[in-house]
Amino acid sequence: MEMKWTNRQNMTMLTDFYEFTMANGYLKSGMQDKEAVFDMFFRTVPENGGFAIMAGLEQLVDHLSALEFDDDDITYLESLNVFDQDFIDYLHKFEFSCDVWAVNEGLPIFPGEPILKVKGPIMQAQLIETMILLIMNHQSLIATKASRIVRAAGDRLVMEFGARRAQGIDAAVLGARAAYIGGVGGTSCTIAGEYFDIPVMGTMAHSWVQAYPTEYEAFAEYALAFPDDTHLLVDTYNTLRSGVPNAIRVAKEILEPKGKRLKSIRIDSGDLTYLSINARKMLDDAGLNDCGITVSNSVDEYLIRELLHQGARIDSFGVGERLITSRSDPVFGGVYKLAAVEENGKLLAKMKFSDNPEKVTNPGDKQVYRLYDRSTGKAEADLITLVDEIIDDSKPLTIFDPYHTWKRKTLPCFRAEPLLKPVFVRGKSIYEKKTVQEVREYCLSEQEKLWDTVKRFEKPQTYYVDLSEELWTLKDNYLRQNNPV
Amino acid sequence: MEMKWTNRQNMTMLTDFYEFTMANGYLKSGMQDKEAVFDMFFRTVPENGGFAIMAGLEQLVDHLSALEFDDDDITYLESLNVFDQDFIDYLHKFEFSCDVWAVNEGLPIFPGEPILKVKGPIMQAQLIETMILLIMNHQSLIATKASRIVRAAGDRLVMEFGARRAQGIDAAVLGARAAYIGGVGGTSCTIAGEYFDIPVMGTMAHSWVQAYPTEYEAFAEYALAFPDDTHLLVDTYNTLRSGVPNAIRVAKEILEPKGKRLKSIRIDSGDLTYLSINARKMLDDAGLNDCGITVSNSVDEYLIRELLHQGARIDSFGVGERLITSRSDPVFGGVYKLAAVEENGKLLAKMKFSDNPEKVTNPGDKQVYRLYDRSTGKAEADLITLVDEIIDDSKPLTIFDPYHTWKRKTLPCFRAEPLLKPVFVRGKSIYEKKTVQEVREYCLSEQEKLWDTVKRFEKPQTYYVDLSEELWTLKDNYLRQNNPV
Repeated sequence: MEMKWTNRQNMTMLTDFYEFTMANGYLKSGMQDKEAVFDMFFRTVPENGGFAIMAGLEQLVDHLSALEFDDDDITYLESLNVFDQDFIDYLHKFEFSCDVWAVNEGLPIFPGEPILKVKGPIMQAQLIETMILLIMNHQSLIATKASRIVRAAGDRLVMEFGARRAQGIDAAVLGARAAYIGGVGGTSCTIAGEYFDIPVMGTMAHSWVQAYPTEYEAFAEYALAFPDDTHLLVDTYNTLRSGVPNAIRVAKEILEPKGKRLKSIRIDSGDLTYLSINARKMLDDAGLNDCGITVSNSVDEYLIRELLHQGARIDSFGVGERLITSRSDPVFGGVYKLAAVEENGKLLAKMKFSDNPEKVTNPGDKQVYRLYDRSTGKAEADLITLVDEIIDDSKPLTIFDPYHTWKRKTLPCFRAEPLLKPVFVRGKSIYEKKTVQEVREYCLSEQEKLWDTVKRFEKPQTYYVDLSEELWTLKDNYLRQNNPV
Repeated sequence: MEMKWTNRQNMTMLTDFYEFTMANGYLKSGMQDKEAVFDMFFRTVPENGGFAIMAGLEQLVDHLSALEFDDDDITYLESLNVFDQDFIDYLHKFEFSCDVWAVNEGLPIFPGEPILKVKGPIMQAQLIETMILLIMNHQSLIATKASRIVRAAGDRLVMEFGARRAQGIDAAVLGARAAYIGGVGGTSCTIAGEYFDIPVMGTMAHSWVQAYPTEYEAFAEYALAFPDDTHLLVDTYNTLRSGVPNAIRVAKEILEPKGKRLKSIRIDSGDLTYLSINARKMLDDAGLNDCGITVSNSVDEYLIRELLHQGARIDSFGVGERLITSRSDPVFGGVYKLAAVEENGKLLAKMKFSDNPEKVTNPGDKQVYRLYDRSTGKAEADLITLVDEIIDDSKPLTIFDPYHTWKRKTLPCFRAEPLLKPVFVRGKSIYEKKTVQEVREYCLSEQEKLWDTVKRFEKPQTYYVDLSEELWTLKDNYLRQNNPV
């Protein structure tokens, strides 16, 4: 049978080609079963924000649970005439056996800290790099963007309307999922509602209005079809001279005689401040104070803040391409780096050097703790430690800036929560599935625990991500002893 | 069974929710079977370029061929308590019956012209809007970006390396497909190679180099594993002091004794001009004139032009996030607009008005012709006509600017090629599948037919997209008679 992308079954081959050549190389040099630790982390928050949101874990778990090279895959790899027969045999029998830890989906995350960790045979841990980065980078990008837009909108509803401009089907559907985790109230993407139980929402297209002889007839037919849920798009011809008056007429002539109310109007073009203020006045004057106003043209957190600052009268926002592609910063730069590898039966810490101190990685098998002040409940810092360190949160702790070590801060009364939690043990998933609704609530509640200074859009306060004394010393010694420059 | 996104089968529900409510509304108002014509077109070329590239048609055909609402879909839609039973019954029996025309995949396309047209019952033509826009917008975006990057690189190889930063799995795989259509020479995305027979390529990751006690050992092990295809990543520690010398040593000590040559080195950080010039000199001095240099850090058409302008010695480019997300302009703004609808048994042209002349649509059921000069073979203009007009290319034709009608141009000796070709007839696909290789070659050859002035990156010449006299007159009359402002 022809292999059709639209009928695809298994994503095991969604792997950069060099992962295969390296895996073959590890096998050839006898390294394949050496235990290695890889960290996923990111270096900068999109749009210079104060934090990002972790998302995508559920889909990653599903893919890693289904890793398997089928006959088509093997045949294809053999046909390239690059790989050893031993390696092809290995792929036939491939069985995933790594441990995976990850922070919870929906958690606010910060640059430099491991958000996911893989420990296992280096050959396997290497092979899954592409899939991990692809899935986590994408959904974390969109959840982070959604959280920004939702914060800008305050208590107004934000709806995700971007499917038609998404970068492919996954981008539309899992983008809607990630946006919901990040705080939007619903999506236009019906299949995202079907698979993830996200509320689905929408109004009408301009084509509906054009399809009828007049705008009034178009509105009237819609109100007759959906008297309990009438939302009218008022900008096809002229918003204030035609659209809003026709919407009011329909509310009065069609809906009110049935005891129904016009739910909302939508404005999709023109000056949204001017039009919303005037539309509001016209609706109020007609006694339609309960009719909402939705706007939806090129909306993002920047425009939302400006519109609200100018006194626009908007009840909800339909956000399209600028959310679903994170248009103003469309890449989440998560990386996957080797932190340790077995040598002579022991895990040996590894680092990547760079002239740029931000690009130097943290060595060793690690854990991350979030330190919450017990009196305020607020998150004060994250602390990266070696995995076997014990953080005693019954007594004060002094943390220090890893670059400017004289900058110190003592936390007198705090609670330490380990963030990396086991998801796979020896290749078997122990992940407890949460509903997207649970993840969304967790995400909103964890954002509540951040100080407002970290949540600012412009020049947010840098949240502390510090190293334990033990990890700092390991890194410092490593740099002194191994730096080849 | 639990509905898992990773096990999904059918994408019929990938539809904005308002398409369903409108479809239900059309059914309720008795409009459902009225014939309508919708056009897909776009208004501006990404990054102010001179043209875009059409891509994604094959996947769209696959999805439209598989349209079907299954029991899960129906159950979900019923559970929303929004739809009439008549509509639910209709979906049960849904059978796609529209005609679809589209321009060839790989064709250079221009703003304002229909690149895809749907004709059929308004209810159906409306329902497929989201899927059409999503699939065509995504792949056209990436093919267009790839064509820019490939043009900047001249005769140097461009490789697509972006999977890990793509916006989801489709973005990675179909993005690799679209990039290949746009002219890249290969991809790192193995599954794209498997499904679309695109050449797969890659080198090694920093983790490979770190996993061995020394850089030299890491390089040596790789050369031993792949003596016929050794590509070494030289920037893990220090490119010129460590990476390149170790690569040369491996070429001399490991490869040359076997009669093998070092294929290439890759530089992934630092100043690519400085490092490539110096690495080239070191390689040449060691007699490795045939060893290529690949660079791969944040590369796009802008950086490529700068690097080459500065004399960088680069043989191939690995392009990641800036291609796979079209980072500097990540949205292709294709829209889907009603152009005609049946009234009293006849198709009545429809237009959307706007204060912005660029946003006024072209009414009626249309065709587009590309007019090639018979002596040069170059494309001189595209001409949008009503569908039943005949373009007689045996005699000269005078075309005119639709906004400034006094601007006229006569084509003395031209060949007219109709661009919209039938893809579905009454719901059945008549699409002839082409290989991605064929589409890529067609794309490159059609770009050859454009004048260089249109291909410039900065302020390209605007290619003429004119209206036939008949269409212009229809539109002008419509505007005069119907503009409600």
